Amino acid sequence: MMSQVKPAERKVRVNLGDRSYDILIGPGLIAAAGREIASRLKGRKMAVITDENVAPRYLEPLMASLGRSGIEAVSLVLPAGEKTKSFEHLIPVCDAILGARIERNDAVVALGGGVIGDLTGFAAGIVRRGSRFIQVPTSLLAQVDSSVGGKTGINSPHGKNLIGVFHQPDLVLADTDVLDSLSPREFRAGYAEVAKYGLIDKPDFFKWLEENWQAVFAGGAARIEAIAVSCQAKAEVVAADERENGMRALLNLGHTFGHALEAATEYDSSRLVHGEGVAIGMVLAHEFSARMNLASPDDARRVEAHLKAVGLPTRMDDICGHLPPAERLMEAIAQDKKVKGGKLTFILTRGIGRSFVADDVPASEVLGFLKEKHPQ
Amino acid sequence: MMSQVKPAERKVRVNLGDRSYDILIGPGLIAAAGREIASRLKGRKMAVITDENVAPRYLEPLMASLGRSGIEAVSLVLPAGEKTKSFEHLIPVCDAILGARIERNDAVVALGGGVIGDLTGFAAGIVRRGSRFIQVPTSLLAQVDSSVGGKTGINSPHGKNLIGVFHQPDLVLADTDVLDSLSPREFRAGYAEVAKYGLIDKPDFFKWLEENWQAVFAGGAARIEAIAVSCQAKAEVVAADERENGMRALLNLGHTFGHALEAATEYDSSRLVHGEGVAIGMVLAHEFSARMNLASPDDARRVEAHLKAVGLPTRMDDICGHLPPAERLMEAIAQDKKVKGGKLTFILTRGIGRSFVADDVPASEVLGFLKEKHPQ
Ligand SMILES: NC(=O)c1ccc[n+]([C@@H]2O[C@H](COP(=O)([O-])OP(=O)(O)OC[C@H]3O[C@@H](n4cnc5c(N)ncnc54)[C@H](O)[C@@H]3O)[C@@H](O)[C@H]2O)c1
Ligand SMILES: NC(=O)c1ccc[n+]([C@@H]2O[C@H](COP(=O)([O-])OP(=O)(O)OC[C@H]3O[C@@H](n4cnc5c(N)ncnc54)[C@H](O)[C@@H]3O)[C@@H](O)[C@H]2O)c1
Ligand SMILES: [Zn+2]
Ligand SMILES: [Zn+2]
Repeated sequence: MMSQVKPAERKVRVNLGDRSYDILIGPGLIAAAGREIASRLKGRKMAVITDENVAPRYLEPLMASLGRSGIEAVSLVLPAGEKTKSFEHLIPVCDAILGARIERNDAVVALGGGVIGDLTGFAAGIVRRGSRFIQVPTSLLAQVDSSVGGKTGINSPHGKNLIGVFHQPDLVLADTDVLDSLSPREFRAGYAEVAKYGLIDKPDFFKWLEENWQAVFAGGAARIEAIAVSCQAKAEVVAADERENGMRALLNLGHTFGHALEAATEYDSSRLVHGEGVAIGMVLAHEFSARMNLASPDDARRVEAHLKAVGLPTRMDDICGHLPPAERLMEAIAQDKKVKGGKLTFILTRGIGRSFVADDVPASEVLGFLKEKHPQ
Repeated sequence: MMSQVKPAERKVRVNLGDRSYDILIGPGLIAAAGREIASRLKGRKMAVITDENVAPRYLEPLMASLGRSGIEAVSLVLPAGEKTKSFEHLIPVCDAILGARIERNDAVVALGGGVIGDLTGFAAGIVRRGSRFIQVPTSLLAQVDSSVGGKTGINSPHGKNLIGVFHQPDLVLADTDVLDSLSPREFRAGYAEVAKYGLIDKPDFFKWLEENWQAVFAGGAARIEAIAVSCQAKAEVVAADERENGMRALLNLGHTFGHALEAATEYDSSRLVHGEGVAIGMVLAHEFSARMNLASPDDARRVEAHLKAVGLPTRMDDICGHLPPAERLMEAIAQDKKVKGGKLTFILTRGIGRSFVADDVPASEVLGFLKEKHPQ
């Protein structure tokens, strides 16, 4: 019998001057967290924020690892789900951090998916006008996207992610072992963001995914490779445009439509999770680009075929239950943050891996397209 | 009879690269607000946040001025007082801003004292991860201190200003006419911060104040001069150290003791307002420095004499009602944000205008001093 070779750990550096940090990607990183943190940070007090799905599996191993490195940590377990990204839950998180008497060199740790990461990062960003922050992302989406780049925040009744700050982590520990306990549905949702990097500007990576997605889903080296390529892609965009004044907007490919669908389904994750909205949104963005004669309809079909193959929803009709009419979706789009002086900013594409920022998309075109795709 | 000459308007620039901004100081600036804003910002939508004391006097004139310049504005009136700096009031402010559909070039306007400025600035800093922000400070304290420099935030049950962000305004309009309606007590409280700039590093300014404070209180050119010197002093410190990594901490002269007293009086403004806490705190800082053999006790006496002359409280006994014992004050100091690894950071002085940051003050010395000053 051959000995099982442990896949190698990967490291991606996010270059942001004196706020640069490492993303470590590989197996066993929760067990190694104490060592990795203690070698980088001087503080020995931490507050760990997590959710009720992640806590039973990974909180104890993380606390034990911190303890072994002499780090004294308190923890707070929140309900799971998008609704946790709210002022209601932000307040106790701030209280827990302050109650733990976290000082300048200590840190706040997010252990969980994008919800816990965004909420905890926001709290870390505002407690004492900015505290150190460590991401331990446990969902695929969080490992390849939300834990990297410093966007943090909560939702408002007016829309998703409308309240928050830019606050970079000091370290990201993406333990790829933990993805085994993620539901297949959540894994697929995170995969939508992986595919996104290919669609933005890496046509070869998209092709690689078309050919290797089964291996990525199965785990091991291909999965680590896909996560590392994704983190590298995001790190480059963030380093070039930290505060989204320009090209960082490309990361929103599929997100304008996706956010509108999330709002339309009232952030009810039984109906739609973020990555699923992004999957449908990316197909819509490619179809809309074809409709505007920017790209070939074949590209939209290719995107849809791949996302469908992995089991993602790709059309508005795939969402169960009633969807509001196109006009209501349009309102959600208009209130989304990518609006300037009434004109719509959209990420459109000239084909696979050729996305671009269009900041003068006529609302009437979008509405017409939505009506066509979603006749009442 | 001589014609009344209108005192000249003053302008102070805060140099922060592409985030630089002007502070305008003088009479009639609320009536001119629309023009000053419209000449600097492209947006024509604003949300004005104010409090119930300021609104009846100045909200209508401000809204009218904005309207004359083609700016469409909504307003929100909050209760007055330190307790308004809380999550409870932050949430409706964020809602009002989002509800007004403020876009990238539009702005959020704070019309009021430091409470409204800190709260509104925080909301502007987190809505859409940072929105444009204009300060129209109406208290002396806000004109000379809180409206300049970008520190924003709210209080926590764990202490004052523990939650917030750095978010610079795009413009500060300090209309000196409005100070006439400020209560004498609030004017004096703001004056404590004016005197602070002298005590930090401008001994000549402190001397000028000792000689001219009556003219400053009376209004006119001396008042504008005192405000302009104060803003210039603060602007220089902020430009040199925006995020308080070093010398900006000097602005906290008197504030460590002051904050502890504010906490001890439960932020009850009938007992103590911020500037009064600072006045007592500055006397304590000079006395403590003398006790540590850093400065002459004569300087502490001179500081106390001046602050007493203008009618400010200068001793803990001047606070009406019961004060908790020195040990409890000490706890509040330890939870204050100027703590590193257990050691206390204090602003101490070698004499009038010779303040410095001491980051290794033994807690035992401070406790001993407090017990002496405030025996139970
Ligand atoms: N900040 C950014 O740049 C950014 C980027 C993309 C998405 N986001 C945000 O991320 C959020 C979505 O993230 P998400 O998909 O991770 O959602 P999530 O945090 O809700 O996690 C999805 C579900 O999986 C569970 N879970 C997480 N890790 C698990 C594990 N290892 N085993 C078992 N269960 C696990 C969670 O409890 C939750 O029920 C959205 O709020 C979105 O707005 C932010
Ligand atoms: N951000 C900073 O850098 C900074 C610096 C110093 C102080 N602060 C904060 O500022 C706050 C204190 O500011 P403040 O003293 O202005 O308090 P405040 O805002 O409570 O104003 C004092 C009182 O005066 C009233 N008022 C204001 N302007 C008036 C006017 N023109 N006419 C009549 N009444 C008027 C207010 O309604 C209030 O009742 C504290 O919360 C403190 O922490 C912040
Ligand atoms: Zn996303
Ligand atoms: Zn002050």
